[in-house]
Amino acid sequence: MPQCRKCKCCVSSDTNICYQNDIGKYNGVLLDKTSRFTCKGKPVHNFVSTSTFTEYTVVDDIAVAKIHRDAPLDKVCLIGCAFSTGYGSAVKAAKVKPGSTCVVFGLGGVGLSVIMGCKVSGASRIIAVDLNSDKFAKAKEFGATDFINPKDYDRPIDEVLTEMTEDGVDYAFEVIGNTGVMTSALKSTHFGYGKTIIVGVAPSTATISFDPMLVLTGRVLTGAVFGGIIFSSGALVLYILYVKTVHLYCIVQQILQREE
Amino acid sequence: MPQCRKCKCCVSSDTNICYQNDIGKYNGVLLDKTSRFTCKGKPVHNFVSTSTFTEYTVVDDIAVAKIHRDAPLDKVCLIGCAFSTGYGSAVKAAKVKPGSTCVVFGLGGVGLSVIMGCKVSGASRIIAVDLNSDKFAKAKEFGATDFINPKDYDRPIDEVLTEMTEDGVDYAFEVIGNTGVMTSALKSTHFGYGKTIIVGVAPSTATISFDPMLVLTGRVLTGAVFGGIIFSSGALVLYILYVKTVHLYCIVQQILQREE
Repeated sequence: MPQCRKCKCCVSSDTNICYQNDIGKYNGVLLDKTSRFTCKGKPVHNFVSTSTFTEYTVVDDIAVAKIHRDAPLDKVCLIGCAFSTGYGSAVKAAKVKPGSTCVVFGLGGVGLSVIMGCKVSGASRIIAVDLNSDKFAKAKEFGATDFINPKDYDRPIDEVLTEMTEDGVDYAFEVIGNTGVMTSALKSTHFGYGKTIIVGVAPSTATISFDPMLVLTGRVLTGAVFGGIIFSSGALVLYILYVKTVHLYCIVQQILQREE
Repeated sequence: MPQCRKCKCCVSSDTNICYQNDIGKYNGVLLDKTSRFTCKGKPVHNFVSTSTFTEYTVVDDIAVAKIHRDAPLDKVCLIGCAFSTGYGSAVKAAKVKPGSTCVVFGLGGVGLSVIMGCKVSGASRIIAVDLNSDKFAKAKEFGATDFINPKDYDRPIDEVLTEMTEDGVDYAFEVIGNTGVMTSALKSTHFGYGKTIIVGVAPSTATISFDPMLVLTGRVLTGAVFGGIIFSSGALVLYILYVKTVHLYCIVQQILQREE
């Protein structure tokens, strides 16, 4: 993600969304107003200042972060999005406190990284939720302590979670991009202080709806792009974390297994 | 509001909503499961543990706070709700930072108290929004610096505010209880860190709806009951504030003038 280090946002350090970031604006071009992509002679827009889903791309200099020369590219690429987004959502965006109870909706690579962040932060209970129970074994390896498949229940999953946790969890993470699940996540948090972090990206026309009493009574709803991490200064920390942990390899292995 | 000083919430001090508070549960009874009200022989429920809209009431001992013997009851009653709710929303729930920009939607007694809280916190710009321009003079006395009547514009008020404030305000307060205004408040905050505080109580069947990208990009939506103030320990501070300021008298005068 771009970090110009000059704008109001970069200077404040309250957010990692630099004014030069195209997210939310969707101009679809680089800072020089061009896109370097074409398809059958027609111009193709850039994607949120990076367009790294292509094999080759051109990005603005402020969106480049140096990584260690020995970093294996087939694995370190995860620091560029999935791992950083999940881990940062727990550690930096939510600031999970030791001894707390967390719930993570969605156990893909990002969801597993959220679990890692919760565990590192000292959460005492991490509830993993997914419609595919095959994902629970991997979530357990990463630190999840409880497992819920909504298919096993005939009532709203937030009711199940509220009962399990003495009136609600401290932190809920929505890592799917489903607005219905976002509302469930909010409802599953404890009144007065429960915090919900939106990590998943919903379809562009989707809206979230809920009873405003949920927030009037002190719940917090927020979110973060890229886990709130300022990449240009955070990459080194993440790289050290990466080489010191086997967990990231596990995520890679899981993704590779899925691809096979 | 009740504070049992024993439950998870009272012990944590993360919230002022004690487990014995009836808000959100709406059992409509005191702790002994009774209500002391009747109308034409039929029982009438209690209202959120206090029922202080009656001339005489019975409340649980944990919902009583001692006030100074010299406090004039016709004025100090404002500490029991309006003033504390507004002032606390700015000072305690939002924790308004010095030099920040705030917008307050709704300029009743609670909205004016929010303005006081923003001013005391050192906000450099306080934008007052109301459909009734007659309220602007009083808002100015309390510290508002800018005034907007949405009737004067033919486009969404969040667009007007975003333009006025370099991409959005730091803090937005909804002090009406209108879910459409709640969404406008959220939209008027700055991406990355803007905080919206829901202070107004919407009708019980109302829902708030918005694009989840607004929170994914780092905005914070939250709220507070009674400004987040723990009354049993905060009453003394509020009383001192009350006797030291003429502003509260101004609110009372305004309310009395309206009644005349």
